Amino acid sequence: MANNKLGQQTFIFQTRPEILGTGSVVGVKEGKGPLSKTFDVVLEDDMFGEKTWEMAESKMLSESINIAMRKAGKNQDQIDAILSGDLLNQLMSSSFSVKDFSVPFLGIYGACSTMAESILLGCVLVDGGYADAVVAASSSHYSTAERQFRMPLEHGNQRPPSAQWTATASGSVVIGRSQNPHFCCTYGTVGKIVDTGMTDANQMGAAMAPAALDTIYRHLLDTGREWSYYDLILTGDLGHIGKRILIDMAKNLGIDFSPAYDDCGVLLYDEEQDVHSGGSGCGCSASVFAGHIYKSMLGGALKKVLLVSTGALLSTTSSQQGESIPGIAHAVAIEAMQ
Amino acid sequence: MANNKLGQQTFIFQTRPEILGTGSVVGVKEGKGPLSKTFDVVLEDDMFGEKTWEMAESKMLSESINIAMRKAGKNQDQIDAILSGDLLNQLMSSSFSVKDFSVPFLGIYGACSTMAESILLGCVLVDGGYADAVVAASSSHYSTAERQFRMPLEHGNQRPPSAQWTATASGSVVIGRSQNPHFCCTYGTVGKIVDTGMTDANQMGAAMAPAALDTIYRHLLDTGREWSYYDLILTGDLGHIGKRILIDMAKNLGIDFSPAYDDCGVLLYDEEQDVHSGGSGCGCSASVFAGHIYKSMLGGALKKVLLVSTGALLSTTSSQQGESIPGIAHAVAIEAMQ
Repeated sequence: MANNKLGQQTFIFQTRPEILGTGSVVGVKEGKGPLSKTFDVVLEDDMFGEKTWEMAESKMLSESINIAMRKAGKNQDQIDAILSGDLLNQLMSSSFSVKDFSVPFLGIYGACSTMAESILLGCVLVDGGYADAVVAASSSHYSTAERQFRMPLEHGNQRPPSAQWTATASGSVVIGRSQNPHFCCTYGTVGKIVDTGMTDANQMGAAMAPAALDTIYRHLLDTGREWSYYDLILTGDLGHIGKRILIDMAKNLGIDFSPAYDDCGVLLYDEEQDVHSGGSGCGCSASVFAGHIYKSMLGGALKKVLLVSTGALLSTTSSQQGESIPGIAHAVAIEAMQ
Repeated sequence: MANNKLGQQTFIFQTRPEILGTGSVVGVKEGKGPLSKTFDVVLEDDMFGEKTWEMAESKMLSESINIAMRKAGKNQDQIDAILSGDLLNQLMSSSFSVKDFSVPFLGIYGACSTMAESILLGCVLVDGGYADAVVAASSSHYSTAERQFRMPLEHGNQRPPSAQWTATASGSVVIGRSQNPHFCCTYGTVGKIVDTGMTDANQMGAAMAPAALDTIYRHLLDTGREWSYYDLILTGDLGHIGKRILIDMAKNLGIDFSPAYDDCGVLLYDEEQDVHSGGSGCGCSASVFAGHIYKSMLGGALKKVLLVSTGALLSTTSSQQGESIPGIAHAVAIEAMQ
């Protein structure tokens, strides 16, 4: 019987499922940021020709899936499952995107950790021989998230400096196999929920940083790797404040991975774009990985990446009821084959 | 390399992951129904000693997980992952339940199909050697669902005859291995989203029946089995109307599986309990499977069951925007070992 379990929380992908192609579609603001040229599509209008923001987000997700499949050289008959999730209640963006594909659907939710969870479970399906190829995807949209979680945009409420900006972005990857593999997923570490009792929804980086640390620490323990094995440890979207908290907490544990560490929420926007503590949303790590990071791997600048998408497990109901904001992070190691 | 893919949508679980134990916790109304004696816990008060319905639902889920682990003879250190989801926005019930376990968490969402999706992915993890044992779980609560999806209970609005009653219920199963396996998961079929354009949120059985048929039909095609192979084909919660629609649609395809067919939403309540078209909610198929069905298997009355949980992929936003209600169904075959 196969043993693909390593340590307490880590899966080994012995057959090396490969990233065959990625697709990224981002909004107007994200297209003005420093990663602009790494995305496949930058929208001219965040409505994307739809009547509602929600349908625009679904269309962005569909477009990123189509681009990833095209680059992977796959049509939808060759995709065994789409694994996707998003921030909208009942995964509205994913459902209304995937319904237009004739492909089995597995809905996944881990807040902004969803992209790593999708990739991780997608790798399990391919590595375990349950699928030849799958799509792992995720999305978010500033306007759908604001409408749902915070305030109607028309209200024009002020955001505190610690707040993060939900990215209008989607990212998809096709995971499968090729004769001559380039970039493969080698390990996945499933995160535990970490709840430090934070209740401030404008401090999500602080709420998620302990979970990110827990998953990174567990990944290194389980695999016996040093942090320096990786060219880049990339958290999902802790933002500027959460990034600093994570570095400090790790130093307290005796690990300083700051030379190889960055955060998708920090990378996505320029400081003058007025997003305060940085980007967030499921689409943030999805698009930054599918765009900037994967292209840096293709270009040879990165060979070993640990993607650690991070999620804040809150809802408007839990916030209104005064509950805390539990955090979670899942990790996937993606490595260039020699 | 392992090949555990069968036909277009079906996974083979060659190593036969076993159901080691189940737990079910239901509310007051469900405890007055015909399946009352098959549940592990029937609440005396749907608040379950908590301040909010949402925390009561989380506590029900935790309790069902604890019961399932106890019956399986496992403590939480021996569980490699909890896979769970629920109807609440951002999986609030699951997040606030699982945060109290020190176990890696994979959030899953397929509306009322969530229990079959959790079991299916849990079987993949165990069968593929990524985990020794996992918990697959789901829950729903009448009062949390009414508050979120429909009307404040205080409003006392009238429900049309086609409406279904969201079950106050949770169910959990531990999937793992034993020396002497009894009831094992043999196949899983991942559903496609089927959207027939239905827009009436009080006709969810009708919205889900085509997806249920699609998944059952695909399961039989992929596995080469006749419907009569199964003692019971059990849909998630189509309710009375959806059940009749499914039987009619199947007959039109030349299959009459009605002698071996039933629906969790039909089984959970007596007709005089005034639930109109029957039960629904993630907890409906979760508790009916974990309680009544699994106990019937243990008692020898059922040997081969195809659990087909069905989900309606709507949200309040999609309904308010006039969008359709896409349906989905996932199937898992559970069989007594000879």
